[in-house]
Amino acid sequence: MKTHKLLMPLDMHLHLRDAVMLETVAPLTAYSFSGAIIMPNLVPPVDTLDAVISYKQRIMAAVPNDYFEPYMTLFYKNYDRAFLESVVDKITAIKLYPAGITTNSEGGVSSFDVEEMRETLEAMSDLEIPLCVHGETDGFVMDREAEFMSVYELLATTFPKLKIIMEHITTKAAVEMLDKFENLYATITVHHLILTLDDVVGGMMKPHLFCKPIAKRPEDLDALLNVALQAHPKVMFGSDSAPHPQHAKESCGCAAGVFTAPIALQILCEIFDHYGKLENLQAFVSDNAQSIYGICPEFKEVTLEKRPFVVPEHYGTVVPMYAGETIGWAIESVD
Amino acid sequence: MKTHKLLMPLDMHLHLRDAVMLETVAPLTAYSFSGAIIMPNLVPPVDTLDAVISYKQRIMAAVPNDYFEPYMTLFYKNYDRAFLESVVDKITAIKLYPAGITTNSEGGVSSFDVEEMRETLEAMSDLEIPLCVHGETDGFVMDREAEFMSVYELLATTFPKLKIIMEHITTKAAVEMLDKFENLYATITVHHLILTLDDVVGGMMKPHLFCKPIAKRPEDLDALLNVALQAHPKVMFGSDSAPHPQHAKESCGCAAGVFTAPIALQILCEIFDHYGKLENLQAFVSDNAQSIYGICPEFKEVTLEKRPFVVPEHYGTVVPMYAGETIGWAIESVD
Repeated sequence: MKTHKLLMPLDMHLHLRDAVMLETVAPLTAYSFSGAIIMPNLVPPVDTLDAVISYKQRIMAAVPNDYFEPYMTLFYKNYDRAFLESVVDKITAIKLYPAGITTNSEGGVSSFDVEEMRETLEAMSDLEIPLCVHGETDGFVMDREAEFMSVYELLATTFPKLKIIMEHITTKAAVEMLDKFENLYATITVHHLILTLDDVVGGMMKPHLFCKPIAKRPEDLDALLNVALQAHPKVMFGSDSAPHPQHAKESCGCAAGVFTAPIALQILCEIFDHYGKLENLQAFVSDNAQSIYGICPEFKEVTLEKRPFVVPEHYGTVVPMYAGETIGWAIESVD
Repeated sequence: MKTHKLLMPLDMHLHLRDAVMLETVAPLTAYSFSGAIIMPNLVPPVDTLDAVISYKQRIMAAVPNDYFEPYMTLFYKNYDRAFLESVVDKITAIKLYPAGITTNSEGGVSSFDVEEMRETLEAMSDLEIPLCVHGETDGFVMDREAEFMSVYELLATTFPKLKIIMEHITTKAAVEMLDKFENLYATITVHHLILTLDDVVGGMMKPHLFCKPIAKRPEDLDALLNVALQAHPKVMFGSDSAPHPQHAKESCGCAAGVFTAPIALQILCEIFDHYGKLENLQAFVSDNAQSIYGICPEFKEVTLEKRPFVVPEHYGTVVPMYAGETIGWAIESVD
């Protein structure tokens, strides 16, 4: 049977939530990943040193062993340099949300005034703290990411030493930015390597495939697949796995987010194998991220096997992508 | 209090379904409309004279009085002339579905071969039976209607005497066809005068606003509003009100269709009043349709009043658009 080994897989964009949901989903990621960048959009957001430390403690308490590193992030605000110096050893990145653009982002940035942001972004640049950005305007849903490219350009040129990660990119426009600006990087989810808007609303409407940014056009999917499959050195896997309870997805107003954490590596193997690019998956799910972030995860070796695997209908109250369906790869062992 | 009277309102595109659902929804339309074009996409489709007659009987039995005319349609197939001559007095139009494009359309047309369709369409042209068309390709969801324009062009130029109704148009591209081809007409729903894709998936995902064709871009909405508000003489109101039981909308695979029948006139008043065009609503909801179809509905006068109206959460098992919300106009009386 065909197998494939991945070393120290990293999920560079992950939502673990808190409390019962945290206890449900954290072990699923910790099982197969060496570490993950933990999103700070709790209610209230993670925006103090105490909040970072205590959230990390709650995550570690929810994880059954210590082979998993939660790379903590702060919720972006215009922090002063002294604060950033005090917190730099406890965080891996800072996550910027435009205000109100996605789940629990109400306290985010409401205008991209470079002068207001200068102290923070220069300090981050000096302290080598990457800036992770949810890059969407409040425009028409299919245009939001493409419209945000001018903000990326402004930030990238104004702060040329700041590492800026375009999170969960979904468009050809964002892919094209990677080779234009040295300090721009990107994460790509697994679902955005599979879906277009057709899958979400083209046939039946599929709430469990509804996410922000929404899946875009076929030509966008092609551009994303192209850089992921070649493991473009500025591109990393970040699942953006975003659990919501089933009732919040299957109702008259469905929350945004696709839950992929427990099946992400299996699906990635299936995609990369399908396109004959399995040899590039290691870079996409770990090596590129290690280089970009300068992190050294603890050893973990995940062996995947090409065999049918029926995705569970639920993980606790959460319905995963491909619930009840058969996918082509399974996790054989984790060492 | 501001009031507005509408005479003989007509819904030129309506789904009544059958059995219990028919009994739930037919009285709601019959209350405020003089008549409606009844869609034939039952299971099995309405494609025989017997089916037309018995469906009409079931509709009339479900309607509490006789002040409502169901204008019956046949499901398009390549019927021969003799059959069409035998049925012409019992139908008002024939509805063409591309195969598999929407609810219960599996038996529709799978290729637009003009020669295969010639006998039917020439007979329809001679017998003055309008052809109503669900105009979508099987392409990317945001492009399906625009891509279909070449089929409309082919049909309109090959059969210049055939009245062709572009049903439930949603794009600027379709609006622009109206002035290009003399024999092309259109229906527009009320929800497509309100929604863009933003309303469906831009914030929370809204299954009760999910329909086919899906709501498009802001510039498409502007184009639709423009021709509706001026009551362009080739444009008619057709609600495409499409009831599904609540469980089929709020689930992991939501059926397409917005249910607007009981609130359509109220919402139309609100829209036309908002834009200062109430004087054009009569033409949009009745006069244009009478001219285009050559029909003379029985007298009905609906008086609407500008006052808050709370839309019911349910009509039977069906959740309407704006369920539980307050709209700005209400039906005061029907005479």
